[in-house]
Formats: sequence, C-alpha cells, structure tokens
Amino acid sequence: MKILFLNGPNLNLLGDREQLIYGAKTLADIEELVHKEAAGLGIETEFRQTNYEGELVDWIQQGAESHDAIVLNAAAYTHTSIAIRDAIAAILAPVIEVHISNVYAREGFRHKSMVSPVCSGVIAGFGAASYLLGLRAAVAVLNSAK
Amino acid sequence: MKILFLNGPNLNLLGDREQLIYGAKTLADIEELVHKEAAGLGIETEFRQTNYEGELVDWIQQGAESHDAIVLNAAAYTHTSIAIRDAIAAILAPVIEVHISNVYAREGFRHKSMVSPVCSGVIAGFGAASYLLGLRAAVAVLNSAK
Amino acid sequence: MKILFLNGPNLNLLGDREQLIYGAKTLADIEELVHKEAAGLGIETEFRQTNYEGELVDWIQQGAESHDAIVLNAAAYTHTSIAIRDAIAAILAPVIEVHISNVYAREGFRHKSMVSPVCSGVIAGFGAASYLLGLRAAVAVLNSAK
Amino acid sequence: MKILFLNGPNLNLLGDREQLIYGAKTLADIEELVHKEAAGLGIETEFRQTNYEGELVDWIQQGAESHDAIVLNAAAYTHTSIAIRDAIAAILAPVIEVHISNVYAREGFRHKSMVSPVCSGVIAGFGAASYLLGLRAAVAVLNSAK
Amino acid sequence: MKILFLNGPNLNLLGDREQLIYGAKTLADIEELVHKEAAGLGIETEFRQTNYEGELVDWIQQGAESHDAIVLNAAAYTHTSIAIRDAIAAILAPVIEVHISNVYAREGFRHKSMVSPVCSGVIAGFGAASYLLGLRAAVAVLNSAK
Amino acid sequence: MKILFLNGPNLNLLGDREQLIYGAKTLADIEELVHKEAAGLGIETEFRQTNYEGELVDWIQQGAESHDAIVLNAAAYTHTSIAIRDAIAAILAPVIEVHISNVYAREGFRHKSMVSPVCSGVIAGFGAASYLLGLRAAVAVLNSAK
Amino acid sequence: MKILFLNGPNLNLLGDREQLIYGAKTLADIEELVHKEAAGLGIETEFRQTNYEGELVDWIQQGAESHDAIVLNAAAYTHTSIAIRDAIAAILAPVIEVHISNVYAREGFRHKSMVSPVCSGVIAGFGAASYLLGLRAAVAVLNSAK
Amino acid sequence: MKILFLNGPNLNLLGDREQLIYGAKTLADIEELVHKEAAGLGIETEFRQTNYEGELVDWIQQGAESHDAIVLNAAAYTHTSIAIRDAIAAILAPVIEVHISNVYAREGFRHKSMVSPVCSGVIAGFGAASYLLGLRAAVAVLNSAK
Amino acid sequence: MKILFLNGPNLNLLGDREQLIYGAKTLADIEELVHKEAAGLGIETEFRQTNYEGELVDWIQQGAESHDAIVLNAAAYTHTSIAIRDAIAAILAPVIEVHISNVYAREGFRHKSMVSPVCSGVIAGFGAASYLLGLRAAVAVLNSAK
Amino acid sequence: MKILFLNGPNLNLLGDREQLIYGAKTLADIEELVHKEAAGLGIETEFRQTNYEGELVDWIQQGAESHDAIVLNAAAYTHTSIAIRDAIAAILAPVIEVHISNVYAREGFRHKSMVSPVCSGVIAGFGAASYLLGLRAAVAVLNSAK
Amino acid sequence: MKILFLNGPNLNLLGDREQLIYGAKTLADIEELVHKEAAGLGIETEFRQTNYEGELVDWIQQGAESHDAIVLNAAAYTHTSIAIRDAIAAILAPVIEVHISNVYAREGFRHKSMVSPVCSGVIAGFGAASYLLGLRAAVAVLNSAK
Amino acid sequence: MKILFLNGPNLNLLGDREQLIYGAKTLADIEELVHKEAAGLGIETEFRQTNYEGELVDWIQQGAESHDAIVLNAAAYTHTSIAIRDAIAAILAPVIEVHISNVYAREGFRHKSMVSPVCSGVIAGFGAASYLLGLRAAVAVLNSAK
Repeated sequence: MKILFLNGPNLNLLGDREQLIYGAKTLADIEELVHKEAAGLGIETEFRQTNYEGELVDWIQQGAESHDAIVLNAAAYTHTSIAIRDAIAAILAPVIEVHISNVYAREGFRHKSMVSPVCSGVIAGFGAASYLLGLRAAVAVLNSAK
Repeated sequence: MKILFLNGPNLNLLGDREQLIYGAKTLADIEELVHKEAAGLGIETEFRQTNYEGELVDWIQQGAESHDAIVLNAAAYTHTSIAIRDAIAAILAPVIEVHISNVYAREGFRHKSMVSPVCSGVIAGFGAASYLLGLRAAVAVLNSAK
Repeated sequence: MKILFLNGPNLNLLGDREQLIYGAKTLADIEELVHKEAAGLGIETEFRQTNYEGELVDWIQQGAESHDAIVLNAAAYTHTSIAIRDAIAAILAPVIEVHISNVYAREGFRHKSMVSPVCSGVIAGFGAASYLLGLRAAVAVLNSAK
Repeated sequence: MKILFLNGPNLNLLGDREQLIYGAKTLADIEELVHKEAAGLGIETEFRQTNYEGELVDWIQQGAESHDAIVLNAAAYTHTSIAIRDAIAAILAPVIEVHISNVYAREGFRHKSMVSPVCSGVIAGFGAASYLLGLRAAVAVLNSAK
Repeated sequence: MKILFLNGPNLNLLGDREQLIYGAKTLADIEELVHKEAAGLGIETEFRQTNYEGELVDWIQQGAESHDAIVLNAAAYTHTSIAIRDAIAAILAPVIEVHISNVYAREGFRHKSMVSPVCSGVIAGFGAASYLLGLRAAVAVLNSAK
Repeated sequence: MKILFLNGPNLNLLGDREQLIYGAKTLADIEELVHKEAAGLGIETEFRQTNYEGELVDWIQQGAESHDAIVLNAAAYTHTSIAIRDAIAAILAPVIEVHISNVYAREGFRHKSMVSPVCSGVIAGFGAASYLLGLRAAVAVLNSAK
Repeated sequence: MKILFLNGPNLNLLGDREQLIYGAKTLADIEELVHKEAAGLGIETEFRQTNYEGELVDWIQQGAESHDAIVLNAAAYTHTSIAIRDAIAAILAPVIEVHISNVYAREGFRHKSMVSPVCSGVIAGFGAASYLLGLRAAVAVLNSAK
Repeated sequence: MKILFLNGPNLNLLGDREQLIYGAKTLADIEELVHKEAAGLGIETEFRQTNYEGELVDWIQQGAESHDAIVLNAAAYTHTSIAIRDAIAAILAPVIEVHISNVYAREGFRHKSMVSPVCSGVIAGFGAASYLLGLRAAVAVLNSAK
Repeated sequence: MKILFLNGPNLNLLGDREQLIYGAKTLADIEELVHKEAAGLGIETEFRQTNYEGELVDWIQQGAESHDAIVLNAAAYTHTSIAIRDAIAAILAPVIEVHISNVYAREGFRHKSMVSPVCSGVIAGFGAASYLLGLRAAVAVLNSAK
Repeated sequence: MKILFLNGPNLNLLGDREQLIYGAKTLADIEELVHKEAAGLGIETEFRQTNYEGELVDWIQQGAESHDAIVLNAAAYTHTSIAIRDAIAAILAPVIEVHISNVYAREGFRHKSMVSPVCSGVIAGFGAASYLLGLRAAVAVLNSAK
Repeated sequence: MKILFLNGPNLNLLGDREQLIYGAKTLADIEELVHKEAAGLGIETEFRQTNYEGELVDWIQQGAESHDAIVLNAAAYTHTSIAIRDAIAAILAPVIEVHISNVYAREGFRHKSMVSPVCSGVIAGFGAASYLLGLRAAVAVLNSAK
Repeated sequence: MKILFLNGPNLNLLGDREQLIYGAKTLADIEELVHKEAAGLGIETEFRQTNYEGELVDWIQQGAESHDAIVLNAAAYTHTSIAIRDAIAAILAPVIEVHISNVYAREGFRHKSMVSPVCSGVIAGFGAASYLLGLRAAVAVLNSAK
C-alpha cells in the first residue's frame, strides 16, 4: 500500500513562522512522524510540496497512477481551485483532505473548500496529528467497501 | 482518560435506513468498535444519543465535568444550533466534531457548521471510521500542548 | 389504514388567540372534524401536539412503525428544522405537510420550508380544512403507485 | 356553484412526456376525474389551457365574472408572473393554487411563487389528485366564513 | 404585580466561565438582586432556566396566565427560534427582551433577534444590570397606556 | 456625576406627529422627566437636539470632556453614521444607545445600528421610559467595574 | 404632434377594483382627460391596452413609426420584461414611463423597473394625473434639444 | 397656494459642469422658469439650496408650516438619508420627489431612493422640465382628494 | 433532415437599428445565408419570428413533431422564461441556443440563461455566423451518439 | 491563416475518464479532427495543453504574435482567472472560447466565465465538435469586418 | 502650485486617542510635516478639518477654484458619502484620496470607498506618511499628461 | 537598504497595449525610473516579473530573506490569490501593494484585494508614479516605529 502526501503553497514555511496558528513542527518533522507510523502499518509514503497550483494538478494526476491513495493539504488553493477539484474528480484513487489548523475557525474565505465535495472526507484542526489521522483515514477508505 | 461520545438526532436510526449515505453499521456497532479500540489504548468511553437539542446542551455541560474530552456528532443540529456552540465555548474540555458522511458533498445547508469554530477540529466522511479517528484525535489533542 | 397527525409548537393555542390568522377552531375541534371524516372513510386517526423539536423527531420515527402515513403541521419548526427533515427522509411512510394559514402570504422567513423537499406534498392556507385535505391527500398518496 | 380550472404553459403535454415528474395522466384524463367528482358534489367545472401569460390574465379577469372560484395551475408562470398576481389580487373570487409535482423539491427557481401570497391557499405534489384536492379546497373556501 | 424571568440555554453557567463576556455574577446572584429590587417596588418575581427551546415555549404560554409580564433572556435561541417568537406573539402579556452582553458587538449571527419584533422592547449589554433595567421596563410597560 | 443626553434628527418633533409610533410626550416633557429622576439620584443632566450629523460628532467629542457619560438617541443617523461611531469609539466616556420605538419591529433598514457595537449597551422600545432606563443604565455602567 | 399611450396588464380593470391603490377613474376616464388636455395643446393622442407582453412589444415597434413619442404604463411587465426594454432601446422615438401608484412605496419587487434605464424619464404616484404629466413630459422631451 | 422647492448637495453647480448629465441651465435659470410658470397659475414659489443633510431636514420641518407642498430634489442624499425620510414622514404637507437626470439609468447606487416611499410621487429624467412637472404634480396632489 | 430556426422578440428589427450590437444583416438576410448553406448540406430549414413568449412555447412543442432539431434564439426571453425552458425539457428533439451578440459581455441580466441548462449547447457572439454555426452544431448533435 | 488551440488543466485526461461528461475522444483525437478539417480550409493549426494558469497567460501573449486567432478551452481556469482575462484583453488577436461540455448545465460555479466578456464569442456543449465549430467561428471572425 | 488638504470627521482627535490605529501624531503635527516638505518643493499647502459632510462638499467646490489639487482624507464619510463623490466628479481639479490607517485591514464597511472611483488614486496605511505621499502623488498627477 | 519590486501577470506587456488604462511606459522604463530615484536615496532595488502565481509565492518567501521590503504589484492575482496573501502574512518584511491604474474605478471584481489586509498599505492609480510612491512608502515603513 502506497500513499502520496501532497502539500500546497507556503507549507514549506511550517514550523518557522506563525507558530500560533500552524504549530512548531516543520514539514520535514511531520514527514518523519508519518513515515514512522506508516512503516509500522506496512505502508510506503511519499511527501511533496509546491507553491504552484498547476504542479498540484500534475501530481494528483500522476499519483493516481503511482499510489493507492492521496492525502492532500492544498492549503490556500483549497478554497479557490477548480483545477485541483477537477483533477480529483477525474481520478479513481481516493483523496483525503487534511488541514493543520481548524480552517472553519478562521477567516470566512477559508470556510469554503472547493475540493471537499470530491474528496472522501476531511480532517482539520489537529496540527501535525491531522496528517497521522489522514494516513489512518486513507487506510480505512482503502480497506472499506465504502 | 475518559472520553464521551455524544450523538444527535436520528443517529439512532443508523444502519437501518439510507445506508447509501450512512453505511450499514448501527450506532451500537460503532459503539462496540470504538469501545474495543479505546480499551486497547487504555481509554474509557461512553456513548449517548438524543433527538433533543436541549439534552445535547445538558450533556455537553455535564461531560465537561465527568470526562476529559467529548467526541460530538451533533447531526442535524450541527448546522443551526447556537445553543450547542455556546455550550462548547463555555467549557474547557476539548470537543472533536465528527460526521459519518462527507457533509460538504451534500446539500448546501449542511456545508455550514455552527460548532466547528469552537471545536478543536473536524473529521467528516469516513463512515464508522470517523468515530475511530475522532477517538484518536481526542487523544492527540489531550496529549499535545496545543 | 392508520394515519398520524403531528402538531408542532403553539398549535395547542389554536382557537384561543390570533383568530384572524389561525381561525376560531381549537386543535380539539379540528381533531374531531378529522376523526369524523376519517371514520367515514374507514381510517383510524391519532392526534399529538408538542412544543419540542426533539419530540417531533421521536414521534416521526415511531409513527413510521405504527402508522401508514403522517400528516405533519410542524408549525414554527417547519422553517428551520433539519432534524425533522432528516427524520422524514429516513422513514418510508409518506409525510404530508399542512399549514392552517397561507404561510407564503406572511413574513419572509415563513416562505421557506426545510421539510417540503422530503414530504410527498404541501397543503397550506385553508384553515381547519387543511387537515381534512391532508387526510384525503394521505389517502391518495397511499392508494397511488406514485 | 361553478368552478374554473385554468392551466398554464406546457400542461397540454401532460401524460405524454416526463412522466416521472408529472405522472401518466393527460390533462383530459384529469379534467374527466375532476368533472366526475365535481358532478357528485353538484358543482359545474370548466377546464382551459394556454401557453400565453396574457391569456391567463384574460381568463382570470373573465372567470371572476362567470365562476365562483378559480383553481389555477399557472405552471412556469407561477414563479415569475406579476401580471397574473395582479389579476388575482384585482378580483374578488377566491383562487386556489395547485401543482402536480412537489415544486419545493425541484430546482430553486420553482420554490418561489409570485401568486401564492394572493391566493387562498396552495396544494402541491399530489399528481392528478392535486386537482381533486383543489376542487374540495375551493368548496371549503366558498363555504367557510374564513 | 407578578413578573416572570425566563432564562435560556447555558445561562446556568453564568459566573462560572467566560467571565470576560458575561461577568462574574451567577444566575442565582442576579435572581437575588432582582428579587430585592422588585420587593422594594412591591413586585413578586420568579426565575427559571432551561436548555430546551420547547420548555421556553411551554413557560411563555404558562407565564401569560400566571404573571403580568415576562422578562426573557432567550440566550442562543434568541437568534433562531420562530417557536419562541410565535409563543410571544400569541400571548397578551408584554415580554421584555434582555441580554447580559452587548450582542450587537459580538459575532454577526448574534445581531439578529427573531424575538425582538414581537417584544415590547430590548435591553442589552449592561451585565446583571440588564435584568434590573428589564424589571423597571416591565413596570413601565404595564403602567403606561403604551 | 454629569450625564449628557444627545438627540438626533427629527426628535424635536416628538409629541407632535406620528404619536402612534413615538408617543405623545414632547422632547421637553422627556427632558423634565429625566431631570426630575436624575435630581433624585444626585445626577446633573443636560439635553441637546440637532438635525446635523456633524453636530452630533462635535457634541460627542465635547461631551467626553464635560460629562461622565452620554445617553445617545441618534435617531435616523443610528443606522448609517460611521462618523458618529468613530466619535464614540474615540472617546473613553461610556455611551448608552436609546430609542423610543422598538426599532427592531420596524422597517428592515432600522434593524442595523452602526453605533451599537461601540456603545456600552442598547435600550429600545419603551417610549419616554427608554430615557429613564438609559439614565439608570449609565449609572450602572459608571458604578460597575464592568 | 402625435403621442401614443400604451397600457399593460390589468389596467383595463382601473376604477373598478382596488380603488385605494389605483383610484376611482377608469382607463376610459383617463383617456378622455388626456385627450382633452392634449387637444388644447394641439396634440393627437391614442390609447391602447393589452394583457400580452408580446403585444406591447408589437405596439412599441409600430408606435415608433406612427407616433412622435410613447407614454408607457407597462404595469406588471415593468418589473420583469427584457423584451419591452429591448423594444424601447431599439427605437428612436422617446418613451416616457408612467405609473398610477407610487410603485416605490409598495412591494419590493415593484421597486425595480427593467424599462426605466432606456426611457427618457419616469413619473409615478400621481394617480390619473401621472398620465397628464406624462403628456407634458413627452412634449418637453420632443421640444428640448435634451 | 405656496410651494417650496428644496435642492440638495452640488445642485448649486448646475449648468456649470457635467452638462451632458445635468443640462446647461443653472439653478437660477430653473428657478426663474418655475417662478414664471407658477405665477401664471397663481402660485407662490420659493427656492433654496444647501449641501448639508441637516439643513434639508430643518427646511422640510419648516416648510411644512410655511408652505402647502414641497418639491424636493435631495440629490445625493436621496439615496442614503433616513433623516430626510423621517422628516417627510413626520409632516403632513405633500412632498414631490424630482430629479434632473434619469437616476435609474445611472450607477446602481442611484437606483434606490430612501425618500420615494414617503413622497407622494416621483419625477425623474426630464432635465429642467422635471421641476415644472413637479410644480404641476404638487398642484394635482393638493387639488385631488387622493 | 429538417431544422427549425425560432427567433424571439425584436429580432424582426435586425439590421435596422442598433447595428453596433447586432450587425447590419436583417433576419431575412440571415435566413437566406442559412438556407443556402443548409441546402448545400442537404438540409431543409424553416425560419419563424415572434414577439410572444407563448408563441415560442407553441412552436417548440410543434417543432418537436415536425423537425429533427431546433436552433433557438429566444432573445430577451432567454433570460427569464421558465415556460420556454419547460417546453424544451419536455421534448426529445435537440435544441441549440444561439445569440448574435456576445451576451456575456453585456448587461448582467443577460449573463444568465434560463434555457441553457436544457439545451444541447450554446453559441454566442459571432453575429450572423452564430446561425451558421448553430446549423452545423445541430447536424453534429443529430449525427453523434452524444 | 494560423490558429492556435490552447487547452487548460486536466484536458490531457480527455477520453480516459468521466466519459459521460466529456466524451470518449482524447485530446489527440480532437487535435487530429481539427487538423484535418483545418487543412481542408487551408488553415494551419497548433494544439497545446497545460495545467498551469501562468503558462496559459504566456501562451496567449505569444500566440498573439505567432497566430491569427486563438481557440481557448481554459477549462477550470475559465471560471476564476483574471490573469487569463487580462491577457486576452491585452492582445489584438481574436480569442474564441470553447467548452466540450455544456457548462451552463453543470454546477453553479461553472456558469460564470471570467473570460467570456473579452472573447469574441462562446461555444459550449457539443463535445469534440465544439473545437470544429471553434475553428469555423475563428475563420468567421477573421473574415468579417465585425 | 497650491494644494488643499481636507480632513473629515474625528481627525481633529488624531494623536490623542486610539494611537494603536492612528499613530501618535496630531493633525497639527502632520500639517507641519507636510508644510515643510511642500515648501521644499515650492508648493503652498492649506489644511482644514470638519465633522460636517456638507462642509466637505462646500470646501471641495471652493478648492476647485482656489487650489490646483486636493488631498482628501474624508475619514468616515469615505464609505458612504455620495454627496462628496458628486462634488469630486463635478470639479476638474484632481483629488487624491488618503487614509492614515490601512482601511482594507479593518472592518468590512471600511473596505468600500464611495469616492475612490472619482479620485485620481488612493494611498492608505502609511500613517502620517500617507499625507506626504499624497502631496507627492498630487504633484505627479499635476505634472503628468495622465 | 534593499527593496524588491515584484510584478504579476501581464505587466510584461506594459507600454505596449491598453495605454489608455496603463500608460505608455514599459516595465523597463519604470524599473529605470525607480532605480534612479532609489539610487539617489542610497537604496538598492531589484525588479522581477512573472505570469505564475506560484512563482510570486516563491519570490515573496525568498525576498523576505534577501531584501528589507517588497513592493508588490500582483496585478490580476491581487483579487483572488490566497496563496500570495498567506506568503505575505508568513513573512516579517513589510510588503507595499501598488497598482498602476485606479483599480477602484474599474470592474467590480478589481475592487477587492485579497492581499491588502496583510500589506502595510496600498497605493493605486498614479501610473508609473505608483512605483515611486511605493518606494518612498517602503522607506517610510522601514524608518518608522509604526
């Protein structure tokens, strides 16, 4: 079982700035946490980050071929990107939407997600743990007849 | 560590009707799944269900005294209840919002949650697994300094 | 054939106050009218009234087991209750929505019904006669292949 | 007692197309059903259909002179016609609004009726039976002091 | 002269939590303050609190029989309850709407009150003193020809 | 303790016209009532009225220097004036918003107040008594640590 | 100088019903008043009325050939007809919009006119006198270089 | 018969600038035109102009005592002033709303008038002639039983 | 293969007025162009124009019997007519929506089409060529399994 | 004559997935169809596809130099991209907007196009044929004086 | 070169209160800063402040005669004043809009400026420096052919 | 002191097209102007332009390390990009938002800026001079304690 973790714009700054909102862990820290937990479950994981909407579309298309499921933190593009939504809708592999912060407790424009309706489900607000829960959610989706 | 699982209106019908949306497991099935997994983690769990908004408010107030965290599936009241929101805001114990279905992929009036902004985080769309993820999320929130 | 008539908040005040809007008949008067007409059609009827949203949800769930159809005047909850809507959607028995006054001729917030989309149909504006028409509508729905 | 049944655009296609929404009965079938039931009640009925908004206005004005009440299925014009609304408001004869389908369960633009606020009441969603209920509602309105 | 003070959801937590918003006085403290001031004016007062919307409807209906006026802090239900609004509109006794906090200075959903249009008037933002002003307002309304 | 009562546009017509909405008392009548009650409490009061938005801004700025609190009936400017709002926000003296009529029961454009969010609190709907309650509210605000 | 007066739906009922809104004069009465005043000014006038939107479009197109100006009371079609708007925009003859009642003081849907932006100007609220003012306005528009 | 013509902000610039919108006549030119036509009808007229909203309120209050009717071009304040609206509503003398340009053909914020609902009627778009029509409309309103 | 071209209100004025928007070709010119191109493709074409919404409904119903496809320029009715939409939805023959001007580049009320969702597709903005493209589109739709 | 066909995000997946919406032809299939038809008309065509909004902007700027016209299927970026709109507005070469599916019959967010107002025209809903119609439309635009 | 600096309501309080938002400099301090910098550029400057909307209109009209350009901080009136907008539109002298605070980062009602569309440009958020930048912007506008 | 000037989509076309809106200066012209003025102030400047949203995010992140402040003209992305907003919010270096045209005087979708709330301030409408003012604003922000 192979799961791809895709990260959108500014997540390369995690752990460095705005720790009150996003926590103190860097993306590399989170990758390691996920890698360790996944390994224990016999799952292979891969992490990527980009600031380009188009590259996220590329990766979702590719991930549908190379991996069993995608855990996606599209960050800022979550709220406006129809291109990412269409990519998710076009593939068969399940996509799990995750967010580090509780987006519903922030500015109004972060309450709406263009991708939620085409994802399997959503996990938001648990800091780095959102990724670990995303990993387990992906496993549950893949294992279930759901 | 003691965690209270509160369930809102019509969740007593789970597994019986509308299985396409809500899955085939009854609330009792889910309770057992959660109980087993929680036991393995050394956590005590309790499940309650009610069709009354006021009773959910009562239970949240009480749960803040008797339990360490609450996992809440407020069902229909999620989208309109300021009373439940105020109860959550008034207590110190963390509340995790869970949903069986992906509410963001359904009717527009289910996209807005009155309680999300005052919960620690949200998990939606993973069927019965949403409760298991909610359990783990509660543990993560309690364990973290977050 | 058994039909359950459920009445929401403040309908216990019928005939007593605001007669210009709601007419001079009490709920007991209407119950008797319906009972007589139903008896003539060989139908058993039962009337209940509550001011609690949760109790309406309870009764709709129970009525789906004990009766063939429900005639529902959810009164104020008509316009906001997702819980009642979900209860109706969850059961197989047909539900007929009735209103004493012409809700579409009153304040804007009474123009929208949360339950209409999941009911068989709607009857509004005919005073006590709305209940008698609701009775006949229920019979028509049960008799038709519709 | 004489009652006029007015039918708006495309109702001449009833029973022919889109039976899933509108049922299998033609407008002539419905006319016969209503005629029979009305005859039993000693009521004279007349049916008309037109695709022209202006003709509906003409007929409502005329019907106010020639008949005791009007049962109106304005179809598509229901949702936009201020001209029909003004005609109804200008006459003294009661007008009963009926719809074959449950308009509140369809596209959003069908939820709003321009004529409901000036009609006696509304009946929607019971197929051909909506007309029979409309007949009885008209009788109730005429008989009551309402 | 007898005045009934009705309190809605979560007001049983007053003085305990969120003191920055609601102040340090418990509901019992406020009851005592009101009782003392009312006694000086020769007025009998009664305090009740509930988390159930339906129970507030019950109490408003009953209060209209047993008391001369009602001072109502409907809390969270203020902003959404048509049932409470209908109960107030249905009775003849005047109802005074009070709030501890200045609801107009808080979240947008607290700016709208469903009950204000059917109350005699509104008092908001003066902490426990809102109840004392509510008492005097009730007296003024009862004394005036207004 | 000195309290300034500021009155906005058209309040000089009080008692003369539209008595159904505003009552039969003139502004001078109200001033006298307030003066008498204030004197009994050892408080000095001053009344001013203007039809100019700019003059209200002037007076609020001046009042912050010369008085301990302001009771403000900004009348029509209540609903649109950011200038008055900014003046209130700029000063330290508490401002109590009062209205003779229940503005929330009138036209929609009177439901929104630009000044409520920066006032201590709001009193509306009690006729001339709104000013007396405003006086007491000002005393309460000044006396409390609130 | 020849001026065409076009009248939309239900204006044939003028003077007969709803006199509180539309006054006691019939359309024939108004036609005579206008005819007399126009004759005094050496102007030829013609009056037409229809309940059909399409016929108003026909007449506007024709009137642009046969008359110097059009005074239009499109009644209900005022608020929704793009077809009438397009006809006015397509012709060179000036069109004066008139209304018997003050449409801006009535229901919200009467506040918006689809035709005002392409008419020379608007006159509303003066009863039968609106037509006389419309006549003089047409003369002014034709006489001015405006 | 005495009629007061009140002019709002920037109308002192008429004839000087933006002639494409407002025409080439100065306010003094218009005053003279109106004066001449009024004299022929045996009517006394007075013209005033101010850039202050408050002064318009003052003048409307005073005009109600000194004149039989008011012709009001509130210019920019038309669209936002509740103070002017309240002044008009408070007086018994009829107020005729006039505009030089066709406000409905300009920016969206000029389509809404706060004063139209409390004026007798509206005349807009006829340049200087709007004032002459306003004069005649005032006479019609004063002469009619309307 | 027979294709019916239906034209809505004011299209009879094409080539005569507003050439900047609609071009210099008359409807007869366009008919001839289409006729010639269709003849080359072995297709029979028929052109009709009306200013009546009801007549367009009639013709769509009839065209479904007499022709293989309809090319529809509903002009002004495009944006508001539910009656035309319902007629299109009720028939099986494909309908191609065409517009001479680029409606999306004009006033906001022309951006929304009530008929687009039930047409096969839309072609707008190419002047007379829109009809030729509509012809070819109709052929494509008829030829494809689509 | 040289025409550039630009394709936006996810169009590289055409023919592979979601065939119910987008048909069974791949983008290469469409390119070949267009190439063949264009060759017959003596036109040179070029196809490009990208998932990057920025690259579409680059290509539109370049295409304005290298080609006579652009046929653009901006896919998801159609609905939100001001950058693409600005690029089109900045160049002189005509741009034809095409869509495979009938976007107006899908989700609401696909009804609005940011680019339509600056394109020559729009073609939507004819599957692969939309590109062929786009080719002919481009020729028509280039050939006409329009 | 002469430049007039106009300041709206509450700016006379600058430097005294709410320094977190508006900084510690008084309006006199800013005037001196601007005067010094202007003098160095050979420009004459004048500062005025008023709390009256009407006075700002007066001054803009006068400034158009006496000065070459206006730098305007309309403060609260920025967001609602059509009168000030009309004054700016009516004059030929350029007007530069300035704000001390970043209005776009504050309450929603401060995001909209009624005057921006008729000003040359906008400068906001740089504290006292906004005025110095406004001075230079005015010079740039006057010097450019723009 | 080093300041980075970042330019968004289509700004590479400056001076070439749409000179009425954007002026005749190329981006290179502006760069030279800024470079010269900055040199005079002892400031080092760097100019970059891209059509990619993601590249702007990259550059903002990098600029926060390499420069003291950023002057940003995000062009089309200004109005929709949450990614750019998040990048600005994440860094400590001040960002000055500039626009060549007065965006508030153009289409409605250009009135809203996603980045303004997280920038120090905004300068718009002064053509090439906006960049020079942006340079001075950056200096002011860096020099002040603001």
